[in-house]
Amino acid sequence: MDFDPATLRYDAGGLIPAVAQDHATGEVLMVAWMNAEAVARTLATGEVTYFSRSRGELWVKGRTSGHRQRLVEFRLDCDRDSLLVVLAQTGPACHTGARSCFFTAVRAGAEVAAPEPATPEPAAPRPAGARRGQARPARAGSKG
Amino acid sequence: MDFDPATLRYDAGGLIPAVAQDHATGEVLMVAWMNAEAVARTLATGEVTYFSRSRGELWVKGRTSGHRQRLVEFRLDCDRDSLLVVLAQTGPACHTGARSCFFTAVRAGAEVAAPEPATPEPAAPRPAGARRGQARPARAGSKG
Repeated sequence: MDFDPATLRYDAGGLIPAVAQDHATGEVLMVAWMNAEAVARTLATGEVTYFSRSRGELWVKGRTSGHRQRLVEFRLDCDRDSLLVVLAQTGPACHTGARSCFFTAVRAGAEVAAPEPATPEPAAPRPAGARRGQARPARAGSKG
Repeated sequence: MDFDPATLRYDAGGLIPAVAQDHATGEVLMVAWMNAEAVARTLATGEVTYFSRSRGELWVKGRTSGHRQRLVEFRLDCDRDSLLVVLAQTGPACHTGARSCFFTAVRAGAEVAAPEPATPEPAAPRPAGARRGQARPARAGSKG
């Protein structure tokens, strides 16, 4: 059936959370918000577009920083109130320069810097001792 | 530094979005909400606990369905207003029985059922023709 952005369930401010995920690695890069127009523009242009709550305006990710997000797959959840935007990220996703905004972990009750991805990265180079060729069959069976 | 759930940035309703991600595959399973107590209980018990907006109460995921979520890694984002909960999922995460709540994709302007994960699954069984042993080195270098 045809998709209509108006059929999503937005909050009182007209926004819906969007999880940005790297299409190749599965890494969760950031969580931002979209309104119906941002959803429509993301689908129409393939350039992931959010609504900036701080600036109160549409925000084409990377338009100023160059760190753009090219849409690979747009998904909605079972109750239509959350989005999963699978994308190809140019440069870091985080305004701090980190690849992902989720670089802080809570371990043993303390906040620790955790720059490594929280999830497997099939596309990442294998650590010393593992042959690089071993990573390829694993990716061959993936959606990456 | 010690982590205090009160230092997260909650919305006007005292809630913060939490992205649930499978620790082994990187698949985004669901997005739900936590309040400060849900954050504290998730960290204290290792059982991922949300705040149900529909029921207006704490929700230990899987307590009734058995489809529990064991905490593997708890992360917060750069501006402390979103959470990434990396976990081990027992059974399906979605109340529909689907593994992930994000089983609907928008492709060419239409909603389509997309039961396959939107992202790579390094831990998933390899397709025919790939030897199972090839998946192991890929996982050995991951956080999964």
